[in-house]
Amino acid sequence: MNEHSLPGFADVLAAAARIASHATVTPVLRSRELDGLAGASLHFKGEHLQRGGAFKFRGACNAVWSLDAEQAQRGVVTHSSGNHGAALALAARSRGIPCHVVVPEGAVATKLANIVRNGATLWRCAPNQAAREVECARVQRETGATLVHPYADAKVIAGQGTAALELVRQAGATLDVLVVPVGGGGLAAGTLLALQQLLPDCALVLAEPAGAADTARSLAAGERLLDFVPDTVCDGLRGALGAPNFELLNQRAEVITVDDVDTVTAMRRVWQVMKQVVEPSSAITLAAVLAQPERFAGRNVGLIFSGGNVDLDALPWGKE
Amino acid sequence: MNEHSLPGFADVLAAAARIASHATVTPVLRSRELDGLAGASLHFKGEHLQRGGAFKFRGACNAVWSLDAEQAQRGVVTHSSGNHGAALALAARSRGIPCHVVVPEGAVATKLANIVRNGATLWRCAPNQAAREVECARVQRETGATLVHPYADAKVIAGQGTAALELVRQAGATLDVLVVPVGGGGLAAGTLLALQQLLPDCALVLAEPAGAADTARSLAAGERLLDFVPDTVCDGLRGALGAPNFELLNQRAEVITVDDVDTVTAMRRVWQVMKQVVEPSSAITLAAVLAQPERFAGRNVGLIFSGGNVDLDALPWGKE
Repeated sequence: MNEHSLPGFADVLAAAARIASHATVTPVLRSRELDGLAGASLHFKGEHLQRGGAFKFRGACNAVWSLDAEQAQRGVVTHSSGNHGAALALAARSRGIPCHVVVPEGAVATKLANIVRNGATLWRCAPNQAAREVECARVQRETGATLVHPYADAKVIAGQGTAALELVRQAGATLDVLVVPVGGGGLAAGTLLALQQLLPDCALVLAEPAGAADTARSLAAGERLLDFVPDTVCDGLRGALGAPNFELLNQRAEVITVDDVDTVTAMRRVWQVMKQVVEPSSAITLAAVLAQPERFAGRNVGLIFSGGNVDLDALPWGKE
Repeated sequence: MNEHSLPGFADVLAAAARIASHATVTPVLRSRELDGLAGASLHFKGEHLQRGGAFKFRGACNAVWSLDAEQAQRGVVTHSSGNHGAALALAARSRGIPCHVVVPEGAVATKLANIVRNGATLWRCAPNQAAREVECARVQRETGATLVHPYADAKVIAGQGTAALELVRQAGATLDVLVVPVGGGGLAAGTLLALQQLLPDCALVLAEPAGAADTARSLAAGERLLDFVPDTVCDGLRGALGAPNFELLNQRAEVITVDDVDTVTAMRRVWQVMKQVVEPSSAITLAAVLAQPERFAGRNVGLIFSGGNVDLDALPWGKE
């Protein structure tokens, strides 16, 4: 497998072994109140409790520990609005190698602080895809660092698949459907790999912000439609679906698009009822379930809470 | 044992059996980041994840299920700024009996909503001890309901002791010191009963707001000093130390008083790092540990997070 080939289930298993001594086995959380509200049995995989505060550590850790000694020594580089950058920094530190992170202007302050605290070097760029890639290429050229793309990377996808691997083993019930957020599609594609093998009858539902619904449109069209300007409170879900991610997901997942107002309501509800600090990109999964009650009624539903890195000074529901 | 006698360890064990099918065995949470900050091994008992969002359900549930059939039928009544009221309502509902809650004007909106949602009847009174007691007595007289005092009650104290009982069994290490918040002293006294028997060498440290430090003064003086006007963000810790609570705790616990600014900083840190929504009355335990690093360095420290019922529209750190 190289970074351009598609990963498979074996790669997810290999990733699980590779990251076992670094990543946290996060708990599966339940809430009788939210079960009552949804009319379903909800199993929340708490990746906001993962190291670095998001599932991203799984993929980053798998990528970092897959490098040979010579590659590793030259370090890693990525561009990321936040969680992946912090995760890669943490993973690089776990191996004692350099990490460079290109961040767009306007990224969430809490997430930048996480990156810096984990010992990475920050490089700022304009908040668009082209600028990110140019700056990343420059750092690669000058340092020899290996690019670890946030989602369009086989090692990253395989690593993200380990969350569903754990969830299926932990849930204590056979899941009928699994709901995960989708941005670039790293978690979505990795989850698909785990489900296909472990629970082929379990449906995969992707929760996507209405203001960045390229995955819904791409899967409907059967081709990647990349021409969109993201407008959503879900700062982790603004990226465009990656090429390998599309290839894995095409015809194998459905998408529910969610308005930000419903995501924010769901997020507040999770804080209030479950006492868990999750970010909008996590809460969108619950919002998707609550938006289509007939779709989920009476089912065993898995939901992946992707992260909990929120700027506590800028909560989306304001202050009275 | 009646409501005026002092409970003992046997009563804590009996309470544990009585509430087992109703209360949640809450998890013990860890954080390597906070361990690093404190220079100690911190074991957080997550009572914010208890039913009703606070440890109060333990004591309320023990009291409700200790009533004989005839008493039970006439219901229960209490006065409470919030968490105990919600807990008693929930406990009463678990037995299918009426519940009346006298609440002072100015109580936290979220907590009142919890009480109402759990099916209790609310009675408002002026925000002082005398008014609460007068209103409570009236409801007792008119309904025949049994008073379940928030903390100065043997059944309640014994029930609250079950949290420490669980923590000692769950911690996976011998605790050197256990830090619990103190207001009226129900949790503190119950914890003492559990510790005395299970871990007699474990010190009990009470964390108390500097703006409501009657316990610190009372334990120093060897008598209850009740003349104070509480001024603290810890809305769960404004009550005065109860008589049986004082009797149990006197000469058997030390107190660390904590300024609200340190409690709020600790609360924010718990949200940010642990991703847990805890209320100020919970976070004060971490604040106490961080305020006296030399006292706790290198020790196994238990901390009870008492609750997580926060008004998300009025966070104490404001909005930038």
